Amino acid sequence: MDMTPERIMRRALTLARRGTGKTSPNPAVGCVIVRDGVVVGEGWHRKAGTPHAEVHALRQAGERARGADVYVTLEPCSHFGKTPPCADALVDAGVGRVFVGMVDPNPKVSGRGIGRLRSAGIEVVIGMLEAECRRLNEPFVKHVTTGLPYVILKAAMTMDGKTATAKGDSRWITNETSRQYVHRLRSTVDAILVGVGTVLADDPQLTARITRGRDPLRVVVDSSLRIPAGARMLCQESPAGTVIATVSEDRNRIAQLESAGAEVLRCRAELGRVDLRDLLARLGARGVQSILLEGGSELAGEALRAGLIDKCVLFYAPKFLGGADGLGLFGGPSAERMNGCRRLKDVNVRRFGGDVMIEAYPEEPCLPGS
Amino acid sequence: MDMTPERIMRRALTLARRGTGKTSPNPAVGCVIVRDGVVVGEGWHRKAGTPHAEVHALRQAGERARGADVYVTLEPCSHFGKTPPCADALVDAGVGRVFVGMVDPNPKVSGRGIGRLRSAGIEVVIGMLEAECRRLNEPFVKHVTTGLPYVILKAAMTMDGKTATAKGDSRWITNETSRQYVHRLRSTVDAILVGVGTVLADDPQLTARITRGRDPLRVVVDSSLRIPAGARMLCQESPAGTVIATVSEDRNRIAQLESAGAEVLRCRAELGRVDLRDLLARLGARGVQSILLEGGSELAGEALRAGLIDKCVLFYAPKFLGGADGLGLFGGPSAERMNGCRRLKDVNVRRFGGDVMIEAYPEEPCLPGS
Repeated sequence: MDMTPERIMRRALTLARRGTGKTSPNPAVGCVIVRDGVVVGEGWHRKAGTPHAEVHALRQAGERARGADVYVTLEPCSHFGKTPPCADALVDAGVGRVFVGMVDPNPKVSGRGIGRLRSAGIEVVIGMLEAECRRLNEPFVKHVTTGLPYVILKAAMTMDGKTATAKGDSRWITNETSRQYVHRLRSTVDAILVGVGTVLADDPQLTARITRGRDPLRVVVDSSLRIPAGARMLCQESPAGTVIATVSEDRNRIAQLESAGAEVLRCRAELGRVDLRDLLARLGARGVQSILLEGGSELAGEALRAGLIDKCVLFYAPKFLGGADGLGLFGGPSAERMNGCRRLKDVNVRRFGGDVMIEAYPEEPCLPGS
Repeated sequence: MDMTPERIMRRALTLARRGTGKTSPNPAVGCVIVRDGVVVGEGWHRKAGTPHAEVHALRQAGERARGADVYVTLEPCSHFGKTPPCADALVDAGVGRVFVGMVDPNPKVSGRGIGRLRSAGIEVVIGMLEAECRRLNEPFVKHVTTGLPYVILKAAMTMDGKTATAKGDSRWITNETSRQYVHRLRSTVDAILVGVGTVLADDPQLTARITRGRDPLRVVVDSSLRIPAGARMLCQESPAGTVIATVSEDRNRIAQLESAGAEVLRCRAELGRVDLRDLLARLGARGVQSILLEGGSELAGEALRAGLIDKCVLFYAPKFLGGADGLGLFGGPSAERMNGCRRLKDVNVRRFGGDVMIEAYPEEPCLPGS
């Protein structure tokens, strides 16, 4: 291995990614310890409640940690959680320098781990590959700084931008490989969010149907409780529950849905419908860091206009629906001028056979028509 | 150079591509002559009326052509056109073998050049890298076999599949680099086709604004002659003319447009509108081999449903119009079921900054609702 500091931090990022989607509510973290140009310890955080990346790496390094350089993608913790503070462990091990990818975004503890190290006389270098370290834990960073979950909009379209026919038929747009990727994506988020229209049209299961997949919490926005008690997402066996977000006060319907196994969550109303920001805050408060928004178009449009979408994962399948009718990605009002569009940045393209997947990030929220 | 036959034919293809977009009505052709493992001659067809690829390569090879292997992307011609037959030139030069990428698609002469070579005792190997040789001259192949021009649909969309706002604003969707690519694309086709709605909405120039760009013929489908005589595409200085395809018999309007410099082309009517297939046949008959269809959505939808689109070049810009209104790629009726979509094949993806360009080819024509 070419031992430039950037290369070593990149190795720590690679290790950290092994934990992606498995560490919630903790962030994914990687750590590499190098002494005299040789890697003497490596580690990554595997799961909440188990040792942090630094602890794994220190264990592997043993006595060789003394005087060594430590590369860690996130500021070492300074507090007693389920495990003792990593900053103390690094001080006790007598490490020489610590390279920190990004400062802990949690405003309550931010900078404390670094302070602990520095006050013990350890040199700390901050910000190496910071953008990548931040991207690694986008949901964690947003949740810990805003209390809101990180929202990923996922959609499948034809190449003329249609998500369903006029009658609502959308099966299937993408190929098997893309759909398999979506199952993997589901297994990395804490919750899946859909509108009741999607439940009525498709009766989806919304589970992560892959080996060792983790089913996320299912959340349906259903302002007037139209979901049938026999909907598949209520009836199937899955350790993950279903939350129905509503503003309805219909006690009979609520009791019926609760006895079908769902949790009915009363939210603040906005124009007689569920206030999405309130729903996200409630989900965030119970520890939901990441949400996959899977439609339909009304819900997606509302989330976009409210500036609640953090990332988009868009699949374009090689086919044309071929006309003016059919449903598009977003419902509701559009920008009135082309230069009033909501802009996307950091575009990334992947291929799944003939399907093209585009990942992109909305820039700062802006309202249509502006 | 590694001298496998495929590598040499690939070199001939590379040479041929230098002529792409400049040789109409002739195809682009490349030729490499190899003797004793050494390239002794190379050539490509540069422009109609000038020597063919084989002649350039033979001139370069001189006496070394005797007994040599000749690689040519297209069957050598056997007829006297503006230049003498290449098959004869190869025979006269005493070449040993000829590798032909593809047989001449022109049914009137197909196989004759090969026959001429074989009857002179020269071994001919046919079909090496045939798919690529065919792709190189898609417009030529379609035109010579059907009489119709090869139609390339070009469109620019937001990532939610919108080509304009509800009020028709579409400036600009894509970035400077993508638009520059479109100018290059225009300079490689014989004609640009738009609906009159696009002229009324955007008043486009439809020229190839690049250095040494060749302006294609401009064709407007305008069934009831709504185009203003002051439209920019009629007024500007350009060696390329403008054809207005119509079913109108309004003599005053026709005279007015003709005196503005346009050619008014009466076409067969279908439901009171220009029959696109008839228009394409008329353009094909006057030697138009390739057309860039640049919108609007009504015209694009009609061409798609009639099975007249051969290739699609779709730009997706990193922005969302963000609602249900706004225009999409196609007007008119859609497929009623998702599995009735018109399928695309041979998907190719390119990036122009944040813009994503997808090239794809419609599979066999199918009608919506099927």
